[in-house]
Amino acid sequence: MSDFSPLAWDGDAVIYIDQRELPARVVHRRAATTGEVVEAIATLAVRGAPLLGAFGAYGVALAAADGTSGQALREQALRIRAARPTAVNLMWAVDRMLEAAEAGAGSAALLAQAQAIHRETRETDARMAAFGAELLPAQGAILTHCNTGPLATGGAGTALGAIIAAHRAGKRLHVYVDETRPLLQGARLTTFELRQAGVPATLIVDGAAAATLRDKNVQAVLVGADRIARNGDTANKIGTYGLAVAAAHHGIPFYVVAPRATFDFTLASGDAIPIEERAHDEVRALGGKATAPADMDVYNPAFDVTPGHLLTAIVTEYGVLQPPYLESIATLELRPRLLPRAEEVG
Amino acid sequence: MSDFSPLAWDGDAVIYIDQRELPARVVHRRAATTGEVVEAIATLAVRGAPLLGAFGAYGVALAAADGTSGQALREQALRIRAARPTAVNLMWAVDRMLEAAEAGAGSAALLAQAQAIHRETRETDARMAAFGAELLPAQGAILTHCNTGPLATGGAGTALGAIIAAHRAGKRLHVYVDETRPLLQGARLTTFELRQAGVPATLIVDGAAAATLRDKNVQAVLVGADRIARNGDTANKIGTYGLAVAAAHHGIPFYVVAPRATFDFTLASGDAIPIEERAHDEVRALGGKATAPADMDVYNPAFDVTPGHLLTAIVTEYGVLQPPYLESIATLELRPRLLPRAEEVG
Repeated sequence: MSDFSPLAWDGDAVIYIDQRELPARVVHRRAATTGEVVEAIATLAVRGAPLLGAFGAYGVALAAADGTSGQALREQALRIRAARPTAVNLMWAVDRMLEAAEAGAGSAALLAQAQAIHRETRETDARMAAFGAELLPAQGAILTHCNTGPLATGGAGTALGAIIAAHRAGKRLHVYVDETRPLLQGARLTTFELRQAGVPATLIVDGAAAATLRDKNVQAVLVGADRIARNGDTANKIGTYGLAVAAAHHGIPFYVVAPRATFDFTLASGDAIPIEERAHDEVRALGGKATAPADMDVYNPAFDVTPGHLLTAIVTEYGVLQPPYLESIATLELRPRLLPRAEEVG
Repeated sequence: MSDFSPLAWDGDAVIYIDQRELPARVVHRRAATTGEVVEAIATLAVRGAPLLGAFGAYGVALAAADGTSGQALREQALRIRAARPTAVNLMWAVDRMLEAAEAGAGSAALLAQAQAIHRETRETDARMAAFGAELLPAQGAILTHCNTGPLATGGAGTALGAIIAAHRAGKRLHVYVDETRPLLQGARLTTFELRQAGVPATLIVDGAAAATLRDKNVQAVLVGADRIARNGDTANKIGTYGLAVAAAHHGIPFYVVAPRATFDFTLASGDAIPIEERAHDEVRALGGKATAPADMDVYNPAFDVTPGHLLTAIVTEYGVLQPPYLESIATLELRPRLLPRAEEVG
């Protein structure tokens, strides 16, 4: 694997970059059991909705490789599925693995399916990046939030994949990166990825986004997604909703870039998306240093829901979805998955 | 002085709370020279537009007490005036001191004038708090940004003064506090002040503000100001503009609370307000720990300008200004200052 590939299978374990250590150090760790996979997800050592899908799938394959099967395998899979409640990719990938196991797939077939899910992410990302790059101007400022590059997916990325693809196609973009409190995925990860890709970028605090949209002549806002309902309502990293409101206020296009796997076709709207509330110390302290009184009450939702009517378009691996989303997302649902299922390949 | 009074005169120096140490420790420091005053302002040990006015005035009095006069006193005063470029209170207070000196006031009269400016802040704050408290509902959620309480002014505060006065008058308010990156004045200072006052409060990251406005049924947003132009355009802590856009989107009243001294009657609009850009390491590091690559480019404006048309009303010590602000602010300009000038008192 390249130094910066966030996920790889080494024969009997998953090797991942511990994203909590970035950008100071690139630390590779090894998850050889379901418990280690759950721990890495819950502590955000591995994060990013699409990457969680592939990582969770490897987690199920690891349990099967240990000889776990039947109801015990199902229980291990459900532990992984519950490690982050908002990201639908994780649930979708784990469910695909469980379906295969229940259809009789053995440990070799399950590993092949996890690898297929990982490969599917890379192919999906490449397609989204190409569609997204076309939407961007030949030059100008772009603003993005959180982390949506290779570290988030294990492929080219979603929103950042499109930005990097546009840069490689010769578009002269300058990217403003929200630092993305509380966990600073923008400051720690997106800056790192943009530098790897050679894209000019400037870091801002989240509170500076609205003024930056106005004062720096931003041409488009691109974000990823953790779950999208049938009407286009989109759960994404906390701060996305305010950014969408500000973009609409300035008439700036606001694009969500997300694969079909991020859509939850069972949900009519975003009202039913569960929003994970994370530990209060994520807000009360940073790097072990208190930033607020230790027992201060905190509201720390990891995500917010942006109503579909604030999205200019949604970029998927099947092309760009336009409003009305009830129609374009219904059409997306009819598309086949990119790759055959594991029971067909392994 | 009470433990939590941010500013006091001890006979031959100014005693201030070093606000960089809060909330972990209440550390009092002593500024006995103009240089120490300038240093405390530039490093944000003392901050908050109204408090800077009184502190800057004491700085000029300290120079005069050292025997400095004439052109040398003017130069010392201009050093203080330049220590923060956006806060108009600082310029206004220093200019008042210089006018008095040029009119022949000696060091005793200048000290009396600095104390009068400090006392004027306390009286002004009490009036603003009373007017602002009346605007708030009998119960419900309020959202605020940055720090606008006693630590910011040396009196009751501006926006937070109104909230605390409403709480003391029996209104059952719950305050959501933006942490206010990069310097976390909300997390460090506002939480501390609300606790001192016994007001229920919850800390959020700045990116959570828009979702909180929507999902927590917020009834009003209150902020302070660093400079207000004749048309109501308001420079305030970075993040204020996005908050005003989000409040307008949700139909939530957005109030600025600021004394007459914060208005710059020479400016037709906010376009001419200089916006201080601060050090990049405020964004790239926190508490000595890197949060981004060390040489990452950063855009770190300390303030943004919110257009007057997004403000529901502006609360001053003379009452509540309503739109159109060109008219109501012109009326405010005709009001006398609350207290006589030093040449009249000293």
